[in-house]
Amino acid sequence: MAEKPRIIDLAHPLYHGSPSWPGDPGIGIAPHCILDRDGCRVHRLSLGTHQGTHIDAPSHFLPDGEGVDALPLGRLFGPASLLRIARQRGQAIGVEELLPHEAKLCEGARILIHTGWDAHWGEDRFCLEGPWLTRDAALLLAERRIGLLGVDMATPAADDAEAVHHILMKSGVIIVENLANLALCPDNFTLAAFPLRLRDMDGSPLRPVAICG
Amino acid sequence: MAEKPRIIDLAHPLYHGSPSWPGDPGIGIAPHCILDRDGCRVHRLSLGTHQGTHIDAPSHFLPDGEGVDALPLGRLFGPASLLRIARQRGQAIGVEELLPHEAKLCEGARILIHTGWDAHWGEDRFCLEGPWLTRDAALLLAERRIGLLGVDMATPAADDAEAVHHILMKSGVIIVENLANLALCPDNFTLAAFPLRLRDMDGSPLRPVAICG
Repeated sequence: MAEKPRIIDLAHPLYHGSPSWPGDPGIGIAPHCILDRDGCRVHRLSLGTHQGTHIDAPSHFLPDGEGVDALPLGRLFGPASLLRIARQRGQAIGVEELLPHEAKLCEGARILIHTGWDAHWGEDRFCLEGPWLTRDAALLLAERRIGLLGVDMATPAADDAEAVHHILMKSGVIIVENLANLALCPDNFTLAAFPLRLRDMDGSPLRPVAICG
Repeated sequence: MAEKPRIIDLAHPLYHGSPSWPGDPGIGIAPHCILDRDGCRVHRLSLGTHQGTHIDAPSHFLPDGEGVDALPLGRLFGPASLLRIARQRGQAIGVEELLPHEAKLCEGARILIHTGWDAHWGEDRFCLEGPWLTRDAALLLAERRIGLLGVDMATPAADDAEAVHHILMKSGVIIVENLANLALCPDNFTLAAFPLRLRDMDGSPLRPVAICG
């Protein structure tokens, strides 16, 4: 490992009212301890398990799925490949978009897809009108038994959200959503994407990073 | 970097009512979306910025201190040294305890101290009766300009908490508190300790890990 690797922040910032999925709890932040009065600053956070850049646990969609604290740490750290698949509003990512990257879709692979949709982070349409993975593309990733799928959209799925998540999760694919700054990443790097140790929880905000060199 | 390093979880679990500092907001977790009704599970979390295993930003104690999102990522990942300094309830960690490890206390070093006090995690006395760093020990670490100090206690300080935090923070030492599982760590490993990207926040729960080999 190089002594001073370049580290790229793959999380969007979290702040009071920062973007969240429609119908999710949203994020609120309020002061709890104030420096002048209490001698230190502490804040109270209120947020959903899928706030901002986050990881989905299998229990998000699967009745008997495990929580984020059961995800094996070794799956959340290691070599990752960036797939640059430029997509606009509502455009599909199908099997034909994945096949040029076929050699990278191997068992346990950490695959991050950069569509460019993250440029629309914070816009009203961001969550529901982004690019999406077709059912067949999800089946291909599941068949290849990749280990982790990260995307710069709010979800890898469109109207068939449940089916796409089910396909990926049943195959053991860990899903990371709302990634930032993938445009800055090289084709290959080391991903570190550790959720909070939230017992039995269906998801967790996290601070994924790309460790380069 | 080895293909399959061993990764040790350095976070205590977070759950509804899990241990928190007296007077802090505590942690509450409630269902928001329910699988049978909504097709997926989502929870709402309420917690303080210093809940469980967490990082202190300089703004926790310093009037003009920066937030967790301003901590340089390169400081939060890299070689770390474990100091085994067994201490009981209320025992001090003084300069004499640090000096045998003097060679490791160099500029930018990530120093984690295992006292064994984490065995008392969850007991009423855990936060306020743990081992503590003397003012002189804090001054030594600050003088050596170490980069990060992690401890298995709830705080590195006792009654002089503000002074010890000030000394460390003014010298730019990042503080990580409530570390778990340090007993399982080798003397040297790679630490990854990335807080959530909480804008201007004084602290953040996190999932630090020790990457071994």
